[in-house]
Amino acid sequence: MTDVVSDIRNAKAESRKLAALPTDIKDAALMAMAEALDVSRSLIIEANAKDLENARSEGLGKVMLKRLAVDDAKIDGMIAGIRSVVALKDPVGDTMSAMDLDDGLTLYQISCPIGLIGVIFESRPDVVPQIMSLCLKSGNGVVFKGGREATETNRCLFTVLRDAVSNIVPASSFVMIETREDVNTILSLNDCIDLLIPRGSNEFVRFIQQNTSIPVLGHAAGICHVYVDSDADLGKAWEVTLDSKIQYPAVCNAMETLLVNRRVADRFLPKMNQMLREHNVEVRCDPMSLPFMEGAVEASEDDWDTEYNDYILSVKVVSTVEEAVGFINTHGSHHTDAIITENPQNMSYFINNVDSADVFVNASTRFADGFRFGKGAEVGISTNKIHSRGPVGMEGLMIYKYVLMGGGQVVKDYVGDGARPFKHISNDKRLEVR
Amino acid sequence: MTDVVSDIRNAKAESRKLAALPTDIKDAALMAMAEALDVSRSLIIEANAKDLENARSEGLGKVMLKRLAVDDAKIDGMIAGIRSVVALKDPVGDTMSAMDLDDGLTLYQISCPIGLIGVIFESRPDVVPQIMSLCLKSGNGVVFKGGREATETNRCLFTVLRDAVSNIVPASSFVMIETREDVNTILSLNDCIDLLIPRGSNEFVRFIQQNTSIPVLGHAAGICHVYVDSDADLGKAWEVTLDSKIQYPAVCNAMETLLVNRRVADRFLPKMNQMLREHNVEVRCDPMSLPFMEGAVEASEDDWDTEYNDYILSVKVVSTVEEAVGFINTHGSHHTDAIITENPQNMSYFINNVDSADVFVNASTRFADGFRFGKGAEVGISTNKIHSRGPVGMEGLMIYKYVLMGGGQVVKDYVGDGARPFKHISNDKRLEVR
Repeated sequence: MTDVVSDIRNAKAESRKLAALPTDIKDAALMAMAEALDVSRSLIIEANAKDLENARSEGLGKVMLKRLAVDDAKIDGMIAGIRSVVALKDPVGDTMSAMDLDDGLTLYQISCPIGLIGVIFESRPDVVPQIMSLCLKSGNGVVFKGGREATETNRCLFTVLRDAVSNIVPASSFVMIETREDVNTILSLNDCIDLLIPRGSNEFVRFIQQNTSIPVLGHAAGICHVYVDSDADLGKAWEVTLDSKIQYPAVCNAMETLLVNRRVADRFLPKMNQMLREHNVEVRCDPMSLPFMEGAVEASEDDWDTEYNDYILSVKVVSTVEEAVGFINTHGSHHTDAIITENPQNMSYFINNVDSADVFVNASTRFADGFRFGKGAEVGISTNKIHSRGPVGMEGLMIYKYVLMGGGQVVKDYVGDGARPFKHISNDKRLEVR
Repeated sequence: MTDVVSDIRNAKAESRKLAALPTDIKDAALMAMAEALDVSRSLIIEANAKDLENARSEGLGKVMLKRLAVDDAKIDGMIAGIRSVVALKDPVGDTMSAMDLDDGLTLYQISCPIGLIGVIFESRPDVVPQIMSLCLKSGNGVVFKGGREATETNRCLFTVLRDAVSNIVPASSFVMIETREDVNTILSLNDCIDLLIPRGSNEFVRFIQQNTSIPVLGHAAGICHVYVDSDADLGKAWEVTLDSKIQYPAVCNAMETLLVNRRVADRFLPKMNQMLREHNVEVRCDPMSLPFMEGAVEASEDDWDTEYNDYILSVKVVSTVEEAVGFINTHGSHHTDAIITENPQNMSYFINNVDSADVFVNASTRFADGFRFGKGAEVGISTNKIHSRGPVGMEGLMIYKYVLMGGGQVVKDYVGDGARPFKHISNDKRLEVR
């Protein structure tokens, strides 16, 4: 029994107190967090400088260094993020449904926090204020484990934030652990941690998924498709395809494979090729599309299952919307897939049959994002088939409990000969217990 | 690669077709299932006779034999169950929310089936028609694996039901596997099976939970409490306590531990003891309650963590509602816990702080049940903290997808200098694509 285990067990017990806090207390704690970041800027930037120095001496790449670096502008962003969480409606204690089982026996479904959330992340220290503020507002405790390269920054941010709230809320429901071995502790505490949110590379997320029996919210891959239908408006098709590929190729909602109906291939592909070449996109083609794509190479079988996250695109010609959908369900990652069409039947078929979190019609795959979806703050993007799917906001940190309000009713009166019947009348009653 | 694996992979692919079926087709298939059971009564009872004969020769207990036996009355129940699913509203394709991200760019959250459900169950062959009808109506495929002792009955029921629908829906999305080794196959197919529903003993459910990375819907224990508060109406307390313990002690929502506030212990306990003794309940007491419970024995530490499922009760005196809640959160199984009180503060405290799926006020724990909760048909009872909690009906077989309907919008117009702002206006639009 290490100290880490008892810290986490304690966080779980304390998180139940968070669950019962009134909104004004939680909002006061959030304002204190924002304030504390503001007055601790030099402390945070100093801690970050140590991480950056270590990272440079270890030869970390430019992109990684940029993600790791914290400056005044990034702290402004963290503060604005916390303030935006204050503005979100308190999701706890909402009556989701109500039903009179009988006179004087009413069943309420009440929203409540999940409990203790484990957040395991690589670099990007802004995860700490973002997730901690979302968890506090939704009444959940958090166990953080950050990447080694950001140790000093994460520790400083966490300490500043936790100390800021320690006189307002049960702060020991927030824990940060630092050593690599402790990741295994987190993954094994399935009686204590209710949900894991991994933030990092695909390999990282897959490792977490495969090494725990705790539910994991996230996605391990983003192999997104655009299908240009026989009845596509080609003007829209060119613009949406280009944006889906090159607007930001390094992320999970960028397109990796373009499917084109054979009836428009000759009109659509040559100009598409030209646009992609102007942006230095490497194109890998199936035999049917290759003749239309000057300078392209032939795709291998592996290409259809590859997330490039780069200026590379695979292209394939299909005969029907059914073939496109079958291909997407087989080779995609159930993340985000789009159809470009003006045909209502093909639109409906695509919407009803593509088994993905996000199914788009005549819009760029790059819209798959919590902010763009109007969620305010994003917990992550999920390709799970239960609980939360697609971009997930604070609602992904909630579950419900059933509250039955009676006057001494017993089940024996409702069973057997002469049983009293249930009424089961749904209604708009609300339970007010705060 | 066994045949079982390819059958299951095929079921997964075929289940996507179920997801897109119109309601009338699914209801026609359900009516055909009910009809087929009715005309196959002798076939089913004959198959069941073989299982019963084997079971008797292997010395199976009376209770198990009763659960295994299928007679005309049980078949009537199966048929009525299927017909009640016809009456349920089609849960697929509902618009759960809608939001204009911008003019002509609308995001819909649409309910859809989870995909392929794995159902692993011990005896009770009525699971087959019950779950198959719920999955068909909700557009999910199913892989069944039943207990060895019911092999003939399960096979017969499954074949009758699948054959009945094979000209109406993609019937290969329903699979039954029979050998014990194939359970491990099911548990390992996490890329293919989206949700597991185990139905059986606690040990059985726990084995499933610990041996798969597929999400599991269920509960491994039901250690339920009744807390008799200082401000309890003792008349209600006696009735509710007795019902929670003896109305049907063998099930998960029966009370196992009674907590009593010390201020009412002397008035409440002696009569409670008398009522329990009249029903031959063995009582195990903490030192504080023991003097009030004539004929009771002293409880051991293990008693507080034991699900008896029998005419046994542990009893403990506590000083405050806070102590009661702390005890329940520590020793309970987060299933169903009740408070008996007339005090609004204690009621609120209990509701907000007990971390259980079902939290009852002045009502028997035995009300925790899908039918009593008005769900029509029950998938199971879940103590999970994500997706579905408490008694779960057909809604537990559903997830959603986000459908974005655009007119060629691209993300580049919404980022950087001069970015077009999002509108994010929630509205009542509905997507009709069936």
